[in-house]
Amino acid sequence: MSTLFVRTLRDDPADAELPGHAALVRAGYIRRAGSGMHSWLPLGYRVYRKVERIVQEEMDRMGAQQVHFPALLPKEPYVASGRWEDYGDTLFRLTDRRGNEHLLAPTHEEMFTLLVKDLYSSYKDLPLSIYQIQIKYRDEARPRAGLLRGREFVMKDSYSFDVDDAGLEASYEQHRDAYIATFDRLGLDYVIVSAMSGAMGGSRSEEFLCPTPVGEDTFVRNDAGYAANVEAVTTPPPPPIPSEDAPPAHIEDTPDTPTIDTLVTHANDHLPRADRLWEAADTLKNVIVTLVHRDGTREPLVIGVPGDRDVDEKRLAAQLEPATVEPFTDEDFARHPALVKGYVGPTALGTDSPSGIRYLVDPRIVEGTRWITGANQPGHHVFDLVCGRDFTPDGTIEAAEVRAGDPAPDGSGPVEIARGIEIGHIFQLGRKYADALGLKVLDENGKLVTVTMGSYGIGVSRAVAAIAETTVDDIGLCWPRQVAPADVHIVVAGKDEQLLAAAEALATTLADAGLEVLLDDRRKESPGVKFKDAELIGIPTIVVVGKSFNDGIIEVKDRRTGDREDIAADRAAEHLIALCRA
Amino acid sequence: MSTLFVRTLRDDPADAELPGHAALVRAGYIRRAGSGMHSWLPLGYRVYRKVERIVQEEMDRMGAQQVHFPALLPKEPYVASGRWEDYGDTLFRLTDRRGNEHLLAPTHEEMFTLLVKDLYSSYKDLPLSIYQIQIKYRDEARPRAGLLRGREFVMKDSYSFDVDDAGLEASYEQHRDAYIATFDRLGLDYVIVSAMSGAMGGSRSEEFLCPTPVGEDTFVRNDAGYAANVEAVTTPPPPPIPSEDAPPAHIEDTPDTPTIDTLVTHANDHLPRADRLWEAADTLKNVIVTLVHRDGTREPLVIGVPGDRDVDEKRLAAQLEPATVEPFTDEDFARHPALVKGYVGPTALGTDSPSGIRYLVDPRIVEGTRWITGANQPGHHVFDLVCGRDFTPDGTIEAAEVRAGDPAPDGSGPVEIARGIEIGHIFQLGRKYADALGLKVLDENGKLVTVTMGSYGIGVSRAVAAIAETTVDDIGLCWPRQVAPADVHIVVAGKDEQLLAAAEALATTLADAGLEVLLDDRRKESPGVKFKDAELIGIPTIVVVGKSFNDGIIEVKDRRTGDREDIAADRAAEHLIALCRA
Repeated sequence: MSTLFVRTLRDDPADAELPGHAALVRAGYIRRAGSGMHSWLPLGYRVYRKVERIVQEEMDRMGAQQVHFPALLPKEPYVASGRWEDYGDTLFRLTDRRGNEHLLAPTHEEMFTLLVKDLYSSYKDLPLSIYQIQIKYRDEARPRAGLLRGREFVMKDSYSFDVDDAGLEASYEQHRDAYIATFDRLGLDYVIVSAMSGAMGGSRSEEFLCPTPVGEDTFVRNDAGYAANVEAVTTPPPPPIPSEDAPPAHIEDTPDTPTIDTLVTHANDHLPRADRLWEAADTLKNVIVTLVHRDGTREPLVIGVPGDRDVDEKRLAAQLEPATVEPFTDEDFARHPALVKGYVGPTALGTDSPSGIRYLVDPRIVEGTRWITGANQPGHHVFDLVCGRDFTPDGTIEAAEVRAGDPAPDGSGPVEIARGIEIGHIFQLGRKYADALGLKVLDENGKLVTVTMGSYGIGVSRAVAAIAETTVDDIGLCWPRQVAPADVHIVVAGKDEQLLAAAEALATTLADAGLEVLLDDRRKESPGVKFKDAELIGIPTIVVVGKSFNDGIIEVKDRRTGDREDIAADRAAEHLIALCRA
Repeated sequence: MSTLFVRTLRDDPADAELPGHAALVRAGYIRRAGSGMHSWLPLGYRVYRKVERIVQEEMDRMGAQQVHFPALLPKEPYVASGRWEDYGDTLFRLTDRRGNEHLLAPTHEEMFTLLVKDLYSSYKDLPLSIYQIQIKYRDEARPRAGLLRGREFVMKDSYSFDVDDAGLEASYEQHRDAYIATFDRLGLDYVIVSAMSGAMGGSRSEEFLCPTPVGEDTFVRNDAGYAANVEAVTTPPPPPIPSEDAPPAHIEDTPDTPTIDTLVTHANDHLPRADRLWEAADTLKNVIVTLVHRDGTREPLVIGVPGDRDVDEKRLAAQLEPATVEPFTDEDFARHPALVKGYVGPTALGTDSPSGIRYLVDPRIVEGTRWITGANQPGHHVFDLVCGRDFTPDGTIEAAEVRAGDPAPDGSGPVEIARGIEIGHIFQLGRKYADALGLKVLDENGKLVTVTMGSYGIGVSRAVAAIAETTVDDIGLCWPRQVAPADVHIVVAGKDEQLLAAAEALATTLADAGLEVLLDDRRKESPGVKFKDAELIGIPTIVVVGKSFNDGIIEVKDRRTGDREDIAADRAAEHLIALCRA
């Protein structure tokens, strides 16, 4: 500690959004280098390298072979795949001294595909899994917590190449097993959730999420084992309702009801129903957005959801990819007079309607359901508007928020909502890139077939953050031994030269036995400061060589549990070696 | 080999400029990914990682601590240091989605300096040496041979921080020793040469050059131990010559003498001297360039050199940094009528002359030397123009080419010229960055002093290229064992299943003993193809399990020497383990 390049901070840094991130900065593991950029200090880089090594070892063990591509790439392969455009503002683009356009790769699908195309030509060459551990770049709209969503970060990305779907399935399972082994070794708690495979993707897609309230990703799960990323949750549609007995739709004067709440109150006050009170779920809320297609064309789109649910922006965006969603502005309303702000209703919507505006609804809005909804006139709503009788949407969309208690789509019962950090993603990419870039091999019959690919990613720098966020406690970091910057942190508690000598001797003995030791040999710091620093730095075993050393005793403390144990000084090395190797 | 992601090529690739580079591509170690960009295949990445690991271990051993900065950085620190401008076209610049300007770091002086400023404040914290192994980016005007001068490459860069010059000297020596240990372990032949410390640098500066005719750097050396990069060679000026007896200068009609050769011929034909023939060395050649200063201002500059020497562009550029040199064009001549193209002479030059044009001369042009040179009139030269009597240059400049036989500046005798690949550079940076970025610490007397820094770089990816270029022979690569992708390459020479089984058993035994083995188990390839591939791939020990195996014999071949040895099959494992561990 007297020569280690580290300074601990007493206070949380201004840019720390999350407890683990704050502790990483305070304990001297990382520093901010810019928006979405961080620098690693020696303690942090030791953890990073241990994580990287575990990822690498498990990839090698499964038989994946390591390659390495540049991060800076010419644009041509990405133009061929369409991603030069698709990635939008998230792609860092730059022009070199000759005027040629380049990008900083957000992922390397194109390069992997082209490399295999360059080397391989026969089904006999497959299956193949290759991977790299390389810097990635994304110009995130909202960089977060340095390591967690940085603009420069490290990913392990691998791809499998198979001649047919059965091969892809086997490669996928191999990767899945390797990821389980990897995250187990990293000491990470994780849930494997079903995920969207994306607009262009293949069939199977799963994410490894590390559950934590500070996670960016929302997922659902239940005790029966169902687990899915919230974007992937599907809504089981209720059965249609007979509507022969339904009263005809009737337009009502509903002044000053700009919100669902005010509308429900107004309805109960002025237009009560006999059997029960009106509820938000009786209303049909129509949310208008602007859809921006890949080619830049803009289209108004109306999403109908039961009034007790909001549209979930992430779920909506996931459904509409690669198009993006923008707000519908007052200028947009001016351009579409059929849409009456605050009173938009189904009867003015649909591609077959005079407005021609596409109208997609939540799967709960089935035939026969009756709604209070906008009447397309200022200050008016329509009641008893029946789906299938009075209006026909253009289709359904999974855009409504998912709530605790919603039924799992597999019939396994209600779900709960949780949050997590995505640490891995495996999915069956299929033939998208092989098609775009012409990766074909000869099959057994001498026929050219397009290769099918799997895509598998681990956020290596993000895994460090995930471990920090899920192990930090109120006194500091708390590393699992396999990724901790050292095994043992020895604190010399006292100014007596004899204590320092004893601590140094112990450190040497442990180091000779292959343990990694951090020795706090600072002479000017008080025992209190040293204890606090040891707790903040979070090495799993803390050894105190202090007052009781004169009685032949050293104290061994478990950082996680806080348990303390007095050990005879002459047995200390043996005890610690056994402890660390357990 | 049946599953390894590799394909050897029969022919040299179109983009291969050098024999080692061609072999790396042909043997399936690397592939071109773009101009100055390459991808690593599995064999190549294994070599890369071994090199990286040796560099890292030697840095750790000397007590340097590993950190890691982003490669993508906000411009502000580089604006503060002046390098945002100084780097010119070589810097990759880009703008993010918010319009903020960034760069891809060519080196990280600013970040290292700011990080130390952030953490440290006292002389007691020093000395400190920190390093990183990170991708660097330079938009090279002439990218070369993929790994050798790429636009994306990996460097180990370290910096030392000391409170005074004596500390810097000690840190410098530590790094020098660590570099010697590193390059020795890498199996690289190298020469340590004196180098320019650069316009802003400190005092000591040395390069580690790997001697090879394909190297980009020219250096001089002699048997007495003098060695210097050609940019750093200084010319011992001859003593002044008395000029009292010199005839007055006289202008002569010299039509059609646009070159030194034609001028010398004309002089010997029409204006012969009595004692000997005129030689090129009797003429004074004046070379005009445009100097472009950091602030963009352009200045004509004339360099005078003896007519038997050319101006060496690299030496000239090194002297004038950070200004850059551009050709002097016909438009420039039009703008400066004092300069008569082809007949420019000293009497029209100098900051005190009417033209005001700066005039710098080679150090050999001392007082009393007599010259034939331009008379500033078309078709005329002046003879017996005496330096110090008839003209006075503004100063001297080390811009003339260095030639074999030139005297070493330290008096150790004539030098020879050689070429090499720069694999390391150590230099005393001094206080440039600490001054620019305000890195000060309190000294023993409580006074703020500016920290002095050393800068130390190793081209990690380039070291792979240097090893390849200096070990390649006419049949392929030829790795030193410590960086080879494997220890042993076993060739199964024959289709007999028993041979394959025996080879697999041997491979397993060797792997269990900790050796790395590449087994050529391909069934469809002939022994001839397998031998050729083994030689091309260049693993140091090649084992052939073939026909003679039926007589209990396997063949062990040393890739470098070509020596073959028959070994009893039952002793093969033992023999190979001893061989590889020797």
